Amino acid sequence: MPELRAYALSLSLDGYLAGPDQGPDAPLGVGGERLHAWVTATGAWRDRHGLPEPGAADPVDERFAARGGGDEVGATIMGRNMFGPVRGPWRDASWRGWWGEEGPFGHPVLVLTHHAREDLVLGDGTRFRFVTGGPRAALDLAREAAGDRHVRVGGGAATVRQYLAAGLLDELHLAVVPVLLGAGERLFADDLGAAASGYEVVEHAPSSTVTHMRLRRRAQP
Amino acid sequence: MPELRAYALSLSLDGYLAGPDQGPDAPLGVGGERLHAWVTATGAWRDRHGLPEPGAADPVDERFAARGGGDEVGATIMGRNMFGPVRGPWRDASWRGWWGEEGPFGHPVLVLTHHAREDLVLGDGTRFRFVTGGPRAALDLAREAAGDRHVRVGGGAATVRQYLAAGLLDELHLAVVPVLLGAGERLFADDLGAAASGYEVVEHAPSSTVTHMRLRRRAQP
Repeated sequence: MPELRAYALSLSLDGYLAGPDQGPDAPLGVGGERLHAWVTATGAWRDRHGLPEPGAADPVDERFAARGGGDEVGATIMGRNMFGPVRGPWRDASWRGWWGEEGPFGHPVLVLTHHAREDLVLGDGTRFRFVTGGPRAALDLAREAAGDRHVRVGGGAATVRQYLAAGLLDELHLAVVPVLLGAGERLFADDLGAAASGYEVVEHAPSSTVTHMRLRRRAQP
Repeated sequence: MPELRAYALSLSLDGYLAGPDQGPDAPLGVGGERLHAWVTATGAWRDRHGLPEPGAADPVDERFAARGGGDEVGATIMGRNMFGPVRGPWRDASWRGWWGEEGPFGHPVLVLTHHAREDLVLGDGTRFRFVTGGPRAALDLAREAAGDRHVRVGGGAATVRQYLAAGLLDELHLAVVPVLLGAGERLFADDLGAAASGYEVVEHAPSSTVTHMRLRRRAQP
């Protein structure tokens, strides 16, 4: 069965998925790149982004970075703040994402926003659709686009939290990174409350750099 | 040099040191005991609490549980909510802590509170002093009591956070536990901000049950 999954979200010890003051010069927020060092060192990640093979990453990190790759995922959902630094209404269509015309997706991307915008098609054919109907509407569109493949929730923190709190996320892979950021975007900004009991950690896999935790939604009783 | 240290604080994946609704029947909050399973299984912990030796705990967990034991610590500081469930002014002196007359301390305990109270001496000689002058006053008294031994910050979350945010804590050992609690007492309830850069993770040691992270205050430049 196709699922809704979030892969390789890097969480600081003090609970942030990104640093503070995200903007054109700091897409991950100030200091946020420290959260991603484990994944950008992997061959899986560098292949996906067209970079030359790196020296060597921890094999556990490689295994987790490879998840969600290839044809496993058929559509991605992301929040508007992950798509770019523009806030409020789109003044024009000049912002085309962080990824250049040859993005790493290879499938449709649904962007959650309160402000309608025409579809955007990158040079590699990746189509961004801007969804104003909320998380469930975006999920319906993503599932339709993905067919028998999984749907990925790319981020950011607020978007992941929405799907988790609603019990719609089937799987969540977090990499707990041994750094303090001090400020930024919190994954667990609000108490999950009873929704927390709908999930369990099914894999606890430390590497030399981070601790991977894979959470799955419990089977409905 | 004697230091100010917090040992063996168990942090849920979603950032809580204790569950919600702490009270006489739930000193660790609802579900909070799930955070401590790794430590209560260790021989070090059970020795300290006078319980028979358990089967076997992970050796990494044993190593971390043993820290702060023996004569290493000469005084403990704790918040009033860790001392007991009574809130507001002390109506009488009937609450004598969670630990019975033979407590696990073996040294003076400084309790941070806004409400003055006479010293309390347990049957084993452990003296509790109730300090209304704030965290620095409690630290001064604790250092004097501890002499050449370390001072322990026992908890709870707000007390640890105060000493961390003020840059007074020399060492903080967290055990990140692969569970979601959904609600409770957050260690990082407020952004640490610039204080975060004063600390670094000097040890990242996974066991089969949790991931231990030992943070140290950076040397002053």
